[in-house]
Amino acid sequence: MSTGPAFKRLPRAVRQQQMLDSAVRIFSRRGYHGASMDEIAEVAGISKPMVYAYLGTKEELFVACLHREGTRMMEAIAGAADPDLPADERLWRGLRAFFGFVGAHRDGWAVLYRQARAEQPFARELTVMRARLVEVAAGMLDHALRAEGREVAHTELEVVAYALVGASESLADWLADHPEADPEKTATQMMNVAWLGAGQLLRGVTWHPPQG
Amino acid sequence: MSTGPAFKRLPRAVRQQQMLDSAVRIFSRRGYHGASMDEIAEVAGISKPMVYAYLGTKEELFVACLHREGTRMMEAIAGAADPDLPADERLWRGLRAFFGFVGAHRDGWAVLYRQARAEQPFARELTVMRARLVEVAAGMLDHALRAEGREVAHTELEVVAYALVGASESLADWLADHPEADPEKTATQMMNVAWLGAGQLLRGVTWHPPQG
Repeated sequence: MSTGPAFKRLPRAVRQQQMLDSAVRIFSRRGYHGASMDEIAEVAGISKPMVYAYLGTKEELFVACLHREGTRMMEAIAGAADPDLPADERLWRGLRAFFGFVGAHRDGWAVLYRQARAEQPFARELTVMRARLVEVAAGMLDHALRAEGREVAHTELEVVAYALVGASESLADWLADHPEADPEKTATQMMNVAWLGAGQLLRGVTWHPPQG
Repeated sequence: MSTGPAFKRLPRAVRQQQMLDSAVRIFSRRGYHGASMDEIAEVAGISKPMVYAYLGTKEELFVACLHREGTRMMEAIAGAADPDLPADERLWRGLRAFFGFVGAHRDGWAVLYRQARAEQPFARELTVMRARLVEVAAGMLDHALRAEGREVAHTELEVVAYALVGASESLADWLADHPEADPEKTATQMMNVAWLGAGQLLRGVTWHPPQG
């Protein structure tokens, strides 16, 4: 962290963001191994020694990208959910924020999910992020059930939440590959699968295997 | 392929399966980079030169594992689906076969999805396999819609299918991490999320964003 006078802090923060912007773009295009610090520095318009001085090694730079993009995504989702809204509207706003984020940051999505998934040292970061998304989804379902005076074992909610998060990630991948697709429409489609399913569950409707 | 006399073919095929069994176990425990051909040969009870002679390099061996486990999984799913059954029962049988496979081959699942996902050269194999699963799911939905005299654009079906496959993969990961969980119960839980959602869709029920 800078210990210099206040007027020096803004430029440093701005430069860091520029470097991260450039790194996200290059990592998502070239992959972790294919990306070079030279190209990242060049795109950021900053010398390579400065990139190392500000953000460390390539591995540290990649982790910094993951953290920034992940935090932005979680903030977008958390900011959209108002606990006073009905459950379906909360889920809808969360999904819209999620798919809106993916649509607006296709590079960021590629870094976050595809490259991180493809590199073992970063897979743990991704697991932590997914666990947080699962907790958010399970918490929302739990809140909705309690509001109706019902209760379901945490494991049951966790399983439904894993399904919702997995379905959303899969559709986000699809969205990232279809630049012509409208993120809002994708969110509606996900809502149709997720809510009409989860909505039935919240009303206590369940499916049972056929007898015999 | 062996060109030797017939009585020599069986032992070769049996040995190959033993090597693949041992490779799946070691890859799933140590990861692709951590796995050694020495350990794989030792567990299979076969000399290392024999492993190379039968199945090639470590990369070729890993691809052979991916193919075998992937083929087994697809066969389990395809064998379970009878096109004459009602749509919910077809989906249920497919899901039960899928989660049953994961529960019975936790090592195979770890190789297929986690390790392959963690290694860029193999990610393409995984993409192809997922695309086949998506096609199977979309085809089933299409069949069910046509049976009711309805039709939906292919893209719409594809999007729902991506959501179903993503949800199933996510729950399969959860299942692989919970050895105490019952695959049949997991399939029922997935069915509750997927079918009550997809079932509503098939009846033409859709969710719409709130106005204003």
